[in-house]
Amino acid sequence: MKNFAFSIPSAFCFGKNCVKRNPEVFSSLGKKAFIFTSKFFPGCKNYALQDVEELLGELGIEYTVYDECIENPPVMSCVKASKLVEEYNPDFLIAVGGGSVIDTCKAANMLLKYPGHDVYETLFTFNIIPNRVTEDILGTWRIGPNNNGKYPFISIPTTAGTGSEITGASVLDREDIDNKAGTAPFLFANYSFIDPRYIMEAPAKLNKSTALDALGHGLEPYIDTGSRDNYMVEALGEIGFKLFAQFKDHLLADAMTEEDYEKQALACTIFGFCETLGQTGVPHGLGYPLTHVKGIPHGLACGIFEGEYLKVFKDTTKVMRALNLMGFDSIDEFADYVHAVLDQYVDITVTRAEIDEWTDTFYNTAWRVARHPEPFTPDDVKGIYERTLAKFIVD
Amino acid sequence: MKNFAFSIPSAFCFGKNCVKRNPEVFSSLGKKAFIFTSKFFPGCKNYALQDVEELLGELGIEYTVYDECIENPPVMSCVKASKLVEEYNPDFLIAVGGGSVIDTCKAANMLLKYPGHDVYETLFTFNIIPNRVTEDILGTWRIGPNNNGKYPFISIPTTAGTGSEITGASVLDREDIDNKAGTAPFLFANYSFIDPRYIMEAPAKLNKSTALDALGHGLEPYIDTGSRDNYMVEALGEIGFKLFAQFKDHLLADAMTEEDYEKQALACTIFGFCETLGQTGVPHGLGYPLTHVKGIPHGLACGIFEGEYLKVFKDTTKVMRALNLMGFDSIDEFADYVHAVLDQYVDITVTRAEIDEWTDTFYNTAWRVARHPEPFTPDDVKGIYERTLAKFIVD
Repeated sequence: MKNFAFSIPSAFCFGKNCVKRNPEVFSSLGKKAFIFTSKFFPGCKNYALQDVEELLGELGIEYTVYDECIENPPVMSCVKASKLVEEYNPDFLIAVGGGSVIDTCKAANMLLKYPGHDVYETLFTFNIIPNRVTEDILGTWRIGPNNNGKYPFISIPTTAGTGSEITGASVLDREDIDNKAGTAPFLFANYSFIDPRYIMEAPAKLNKSTALDALGHGLEPYIDTGSRDNYMVEALGEIGFKLFAQFKDHLLADAMTEEDYEKQALACTIFGFCETLGQTGVPHGLGYPLTHVKGIPHGLACGIFEGEYLKVFKDTTKVMRALNLMGFDSIDEFADYVHAVLDQYVDITVTRAEIDEWTDTFYNTAWRVARHPEPFTPDDVKGIYERTLAKFIVD
Repeated sequence: MKNFAFSIPSAFCFGKNCVKRNPEVFSSLGKKAFIFTSKFFPGCKNYALQDVEELLGELGIEYTVYDECIENPPVMSCVKASKLVEEYNPDFLIAVGGGSVIDTCKAANMLLKYPGHDVYETLFTFNIIPNRVTEDILGTWRIGPNNNGKYPFISIPTTAGTGSEITGASVLDREDIDNKAGTAPFLFANYSFIDPRYIMEAPAKLNKSTALDALGHGLEPYIDTGSRDNYMVEALGEIGFKLFAQFKDHLLADAMTEEDYEKQALACTIFGFCETLGQTGVPHGLGYPLTHVKGIPHGLACGIFEGEYLKVFKDTTKVMRALNLMGFDSIDEFADYVHAVLDQYVDITVTRAEIDEWTDTFYNTAWRVARHPEPFTPDDVKGIYERTLAKFIVD
């Protein structure tokens, strides 16, 4: 009999102009807002921020804009932001941006709730914030509390990839252990507004990376133990795969239409459910050192492993079910697709010594290794790194 | 472009023994619990209550059992229950039972939060409890607040039909307007535990009624305007229809296996999502007077209209998509199925004058009439009543 847990604490509105159509949500949270955002790519307009500022103006809500959130946010950048929030003393927070912005806001909000504690302990252990609900091995049973932070907050994504707007995840760069890691407590937005128009401004590199990152949020738990007995992860994943099939060719060909972006945003949201309920697995773990050591953005660093990872499966039944729903006939075809979409944006060189080191690092993260549903050796891990990064190995 | 809202505030665990596997949820809510339940059908064992009592005993949580919740709960029965809760002064509430029990608990909890107000105003208007979030016409945009009641509460369903364990609905008998009605504020459980074993004890009449009631929670918004632009109502509905296909023949033949009950419980939960996101439509409205005037249980009274309602559709595209996923080839086949499952349990007589009166009552509920996606006349409504109740009309 199936045993699983379900909890999606963030309420969201999806669709064109959803921010401005929901003034009551903003005014219900208070009279003073602190907005987290980032410097956008040159030529890439932050329509989301514009909509929010116009709405807050109309509602007479005082606000300030902090636009110094950075990609792959280090813990210390969240500490810095939290101090500015404290000074401003708002009623609520609004995060307008990609995963880095939303994750910074989540972490800062958490730190503000537990002043005086060690920041790494607050963010990365359950000691300070007891998880209210039981947790089975590998996370499939977990029910997370809604919004552990000090302030209520609204998330407004400008990429379709992070899923962070409706998931409990906040992935940060940890200076103390020299790697990236997700926060231990789940940190959910109270409300999210997902307007597909906002992501249409993203440069192709960013959009393609985040699209494949998001796909991983659905694909990883679907094919590994994250969906074991979890009917909802499977059912929702399949909805997302069918959506992905409808825009994947346009994504590759840089020919995305408004309707394609809508489907991408919707798929990303649904894959975010899968991540919340089933967590990510191997490819996301493989990607962390690429971001931490080489500065490759999170979405690209994780998305790039989605193809070659599948080649280690001996029983490919579920893998092929997912790929068929996405419109692929073989693992090779899918792996080639991932290379074709993302390789052009990788501008690093990698040594074999680095791959050995990352293999060790990954393989020592026991829970991620255990997520793979079959025997899984260090050689398997190394093979995924080598095949994925083949073009970039220099010795 | 699609525009819709999503909010499922209740976290739940699904599966065998899920109550006892989650002691932390109970102990996190306090040291004293008030349990709502009902007198069960003769010979039908309340295993859910047994599990809860054993667990609370092990945890040292003091509790009392109120087993006088009644079917089709009148508002005044909720007022009575709320007074007993107040006297007992618990930390949290647990509702163990079918929809009537859970709905009584929700309403009592709401009344306790707003003492001194008119009970009908508290339960059936938005005046006292402002809805935090905007509402588009017909409900597809709405995001409801989590648990408006005074106490946190846990729902544990013993039928697979109500959906109330994870929806915001509480349907009560209103003495003041002489009909049934859903409460205006959304009242969500904080946590729900859905163990398919509990529903295996239900008598066939109850289980068949609730199964078709639950199907309506998914089917009604799918085929009417409740899913207009709401991708999630459609996608989740289709997951549920496919599950329904797998147990429908055993349901009719009284040959339900443990696996069938599991699928029924899962489908019911998923249809509950659809109801929360898209609301029920015409058949549920048609069923209310049958319950209020004739005492027919809610599930049976609503489920019985699911078949004949479909015959009024001129464009049957979406209707047929749903029916095909359920494994039916035509509307006639489905309508015959509903008659075959439920007619045997209807033990009333109906006059044509009553049908005229109910037709007027229904047709005056403008929002339900507007839910139908095509022109919809009083004669259409009357026709549904007449065809559905043909065997029971006595003049």
